[in-house]
Amino acid sequence: MIVLRSIGYIRHGYSDEEVRSSWWGVEGFVEVLPEYAEGLAGLEGFSHVIVIAYLDRVPETQRRVLRVRPRRFLRLGVPLEELPEVGIFATDSPHRPNPLALSILRLRGVEGRMLRVEGIDLFNGTPVLDIKPYDASRAIRDFRVPEWHERLRQRVREMLGREVPV
Amino acid sequence: MIVLRSIGYIRHGYSDEEVRSSWWGVEGFVEVLPEYAEGLAGLEGFSHVIVIAYLDRVPETQRRVLRVRPRRFLRLGVPLEELPEVGIFATDSPHRPNPLALSILRLRGVEGRMLRVEGIDLFNGTPVLDIKPYDASRAIRDFRVPEWHERLRQRVREMLGREVPV
Repeated sequence: MIVLRSIGYIRHGYSDEEVRSSWWGVEGFVEVLPEYAEGLAGLEGFSHVIVIAYLDRVPETQRRVLRVRPRRFLRLGVPLEELPEVGIFATDSPHRPNPLALSILRLRGVEGRMLRVEGIDLFNGTPVLDIKPYDASRAIRDFRVPEWHERLRQRVREMLGREVPV
Repeated sequence: MIVLRSIGYIRHGYSDEEVRSSWWGVEGFVEVLPEYAEGLAGLEGFSHVIVIAYLDRVPETQRRVLRVRPRRFLRLGVPLEELPEVGIFATDSPHRPNPLALSILRLRGVEGRMLRVEGIDLFNGTPVLDIKPYDASRAIRDFRVPEWHERLRQRVREMLGREVPV
């Protein structure tokens, strides 16, 4: 049993439904608790931050799910019947044994203990566990994805008529 | 208070000191517990996986640290006195309120519930909390880093005579 604590919270003015239906996420803040604020020194100037958050609205039953359809592609227009069922560790589904989110957010500024960010795919009030800077060690250039994933990307490209980072 | 569980463990034959002194990490496995093995379906074919691990050897006193020198650059040859003191959220120091590691590992194969991986910067036996695939949404192209970080990269480049992903 591993016990962690919130170091802050996601703050924005959008409803859960608005977050769910937004393609590229919403604008808002990562609020860091006063006792951890000093840990933000030197973060200004990174264009992106990696936020590890705890998806506190995922119920226990959904933590037992092991296979899902990658629904991110659904929002981008791929019909449900074209989505293969794959293991949760091959997706970023919120349904997983430890409902942890890994969000890469564009950092617009550090205002005291508030990080102004864009691209938030997390509900208002979501507990944040950690913040890390996005640097060259995170930007893999020669990565590859399996055929099922490449096919879905291709479908999105056809439907939207352009390349999207999925 | 947030309670998580291990979904697996890091497995390799290297000592903690060998891991600490390796530049680009060691080879080994992510062992996924039998009850979660089904969650690996569809992962084969991704060239890289993102592993969120719990650094169980970080003592409580080091979880209270809020400023550090980014010691990763020390290993790459930058003298200690050239390392600025910055906030832990601007580094990937293991000393942080929630000692979570975010490791991007090269996936060499899926052998049952064992992922054969390269680039492991985690000690043998480290508990794993989550596994996610590395896809285009993680590969930011236009990221920027602050001046202090760029200066350290530049120093590493001078000393090694080549570009390294730090």
